[in-house]
Amino acid sequence: MVTPLAAYSVRIRARLQNHPGVLGSLAGALGGVGASLAGIDIVATDGATVTRDIVVFCGSEGHISDAVAVAQGLEGVAVVEVEDRTYALHERGKLSIESRTPLGDRDDLAMAYTPGVARVCTAIAQDPTLAHRYTMKANTVAVVTDGSAVLGLGNIGPAAALPVMEGKAVLFKSFAGVDAVPICLKVSGPGEIIEAVQRLEPMFGGINLEDIAAPHCFEIERRLTETLDIPVFHDDQHGTAVVVLAALRNALALTGRGMQTLRVVLSGAGAAGVAITKILMNAGVSDIVAADRRGAIHQGRDGLDPSKQWLADHANPEHRVGALSDLLKGADVLIGVSAPGLVRREDVESMAEGPIVFALSNPVPEILPEEAEGVVAVMATGRSDYPNQINNVLCFPGIFRGALDAGATRITEGMKLAAAEAIAAAVPAAQLGPRLVVPSVFEPGVAEAVAAAVAAAARSDGVTRKQR
Amino acid sequence: MVTPLAAYSVRIRARLQNHPGVLGSLAGALGGVGASLAGIDIVATDGATVTRDIVVFCGSEGHISDAVAVAQGLEGVAVVEVEDRTYALHERGKLSIESRTPLGDRDDLAMAYTPGVARVCTAIAQDPTLAHRYTMKANTVAVVTDGSAVLGLGNIGPAAALPVMEGKAVLFKSFAGVDAVPICLKVSGPGEIIEAVQRLEPMFGGINLEDIAAPHCFEIERRLTETLDIPVFHDDQHGTAVVVLAALRNALALTGRGMQTLRVVLSGAGAAGVAITKILMNAGVSDIVAADRRGAIHQGRDGLDPSKQWLADHANPEHRVGALSDLLKGADVLIGVSAPGLVRREDVESMAEGPIVFALSNPVPEILPEEAEGVVAVMATGRSDYPNQINNVLCFPGIFRGALDAGATRITEGMKLAAAEAIAAAVPAAQLGPRLVVPSVFEPGVAEAVAAAVAAAARSDGVTRKQR
Repeated sequence: MVTPLAAYSVRIRARLQNHPGVLGSLAGALGGVGASLAGIDIVATDGATVTRDIVVFCGSEGHISDAVAVAQGLEGVAVVEVEDRTYALHERGKLSIESRTPLGDRDDLAMAYTPGVARVCTAIAQDPTLAHRYTMKANTVAVVTDGSAVLGLGNIGPAAALPVMEGKAVLFKSFAGVDAVPICLKVSGPGEIIEAVQRLEPMFGGINLEDIAAPHCFEIERRLTETLDIPVFHDDQHGTAVVVLAALRNALALTGRGMQTLRVVLSGAGAAGVAITKILMNAGVSDIVAADRRGAIHQGRDGLDPSKQWLADHANPEHRVGALSDLLKGADVLIGVSAPGLVRREDVESMAEGPIVFALSNPVPEILPEEAEGVVAVMATGRSDYPNQINNVLCFPGIFRGALDAGATRITEGMKLAAAEAIAAAVPAAQLGPRLVVPSVFEPGVAEAVAAAVAAAARSDGVTRKQR
Repeated sequence: MVTPLAAYSVRIRARLQNHPGVLGSLAGALGGVGASLAGIDIVATDGATVTRDIVVFCGSEGHISDAVAVAQGLEGVAVVEVEDRTYALHERGKLSIESRTPLGDRDDLAMAYTPGVARVCTAIAQDPTLAHRYTMKANTVAVVTDGSAVLGLGNIGPAAALPVMEGKAVLFKSFAGVDAVPICLKVSGPGEIIEAVQRLEPMFGGINLEDIAAPHCFEIERRLTETLDIPVFHDDQHGTAVVVLAALRNALALTGRGMQTLRVVLSGAGAAGVAITKILMNAGVSDIVAADRRGAIHQGRDGLDPSKQWLADHANPEHRVGALSDLLKGADVLIGVSAPGLVRREDVESMAEGPIVFALSNPVPEILPEEAEGVVAVMATGRSDYPNQINNVLCFPGIFRGALDAGATRITEGMKLAAAEAIAAAVPAAQLGPRLVVPSVFEPGVAEAVAAAVAAAARSDGVTRKQR
């Protein structure tokens, strides 16, 4: 039976006969089908009956139906309303566009709109850099997708991707005060995405690319970075890479290793794999080899797609060959960005003493923490229900906050490294341990620390916009 | 000297010697240069001095400099800070993108983001109409411009147009609870605007075109209406036309005229002129003639641009010719959407008894109300400092509110007529008079009344989206 989750929670409003034992029998019946009782409130009472809202966590949509059915079938219980809480939360979308300025009278209107607004327009027409100060561009990022690689759902298209992009905007605001606008594009091919974003540049202070399939995501990021005067960041690649590096720094400190002497194996050679390889190389790792289903990626292989070709050209300096299990023998670190269950306990046992395993395939990792227990020194996954969750939300709000604060025109490698260091440092020294190498997403102050580090790196890298 | 306005207001923070008469001399000096004192606050005091914030309305940027200079030159007054209030209000832009959902713990995150969000995405992928219910599309309108015809400023481009579009979004939210996103496009030509908006359709429940130059605006509106499944509305055309019709209805009631027997002359044959002609014809007016600088537009004229050709083909059934002043002789109504000062008092005197004049060129009308006083029966302008302001804000928030509420796929002529009737009816019968034929923009309930009328018209016109 799957674990009950808030994602599959339901509010059941039921009128219960006001007899001892009725509520108990309802709670028991729900528990009997494996649903988890999260809360009970009284809505109304008329003496003979008590109407209650009962919030129940389930494990799937079918499980919700089972829970509702068991309540409906119970003596003394009349179900009057059923609300799926996830759908209810999404009614009308998750964002609101609010005015930052009051509009109570004609004088307000005369400053925010005509005729006063014309003064600001004229000033920007004369000096376009003023748009970064006097418009939403100062604090607004586009969350751009074509819906071609959404979560684990694949190519569901731009309309169906919108709830994810709204969620991202919620995270941007909640964690770093960044205003973010979903931009879900009905396009075909990378050229149209690039063109659409170029046309939208006037409103935005940054572009966060999201859930765009490889290999198009590489070309899109490269060409937008070349042509736009604002930061462009493909979160699926670099957000993951930054958090992986942060976790790795702390894991190395714990296990007494250094970047230079590390042997790293990567399972998975997609967009995230390339980005992780790049950032680890920039952080000092040299011996890193990636493997796909056919085994090690090396210069001799042919028929490689662009991301794998890049890995063949830049990684695997030792020219290792063989299957993933061969590569893992004696390796210090395994980073999985591939598929569920690809790694066995024996593989981990074959690694160097005290191995570090980041199994990031989500929701089912390359190897479950319980299977590697007792062998690994440090283990991380992408899941919130295990220790050490590698979650991009530790990175992207702070990285854009810092870039906007500094007036950065791009995201440099130095800014990404600075973000990773700030995230690693956000784990309090006293708490640092195998089960805490990366902070919780709700650890206070992470985004602020990342922002400060990123802004400082932008200044020292000389990529800040000249302001008049 | 120009009238002091909030648009040119300044906050002067000054340390004043704490002697009787110092504040008085400052107030006097500011008044002496024609600045208007709007407010005085105490900020701090140390016995010897009092620091005050003095808010002063001026008439121009030069006038602000004069006011500051006179304060700086005054004995016993030290100016410590000067803040242009319009620029201060625009710092960081006028919009904020907020989350409608709390994000306090992992359960919130699991519903608003992964894994719960995937359920909503999957549902929309299976039934795209659900995007109108479970995403921002339910309540969000794009305010689209290329910055080619902004206010009276002309073709200032998309970045400089952004403060106006933000202001429009503020109005959408303040008056009708509609979420509006500025979409300022760096494009060349109507084809690129059409393409960009088509690509953005997944996020939006409506498209408000704004400040796009004629004749491109016609083609853009037509092709977007044909290809999109959401309402498209060019506010500069139709918003103006709707409010003109509303004002005209009340003016006719006051002067005992009917639409069918009316003789209308239009000064100006641009986008707004075409839209006004269309809506008046739909409201029952048949005798309407438009004039440009060369005089009446009629079927015999050649070299006409698309909007003028449309007017030649559809209006002026009496085949009138001649200059504007010739056309006005005996006419009941003059509607000016042209240029300052084109109409003289004698022209108004030559009109039919009790003429109706809407002089909408802004900020300087075709004829000032004081020049027409005693001749006109009803006069309206585009300005807030005269009676009867024809202001689009009476229309566009309510029209989109109604369209969104009804799930309308387009804005029909019937919906525009309904909006005009609702605006006209929003003037309380007891207050209806020559100085009040159209409600104030701050009259409560106008947007709600417009929305209800527009939604009803959408239903009776059969343009509402089928919901599963």
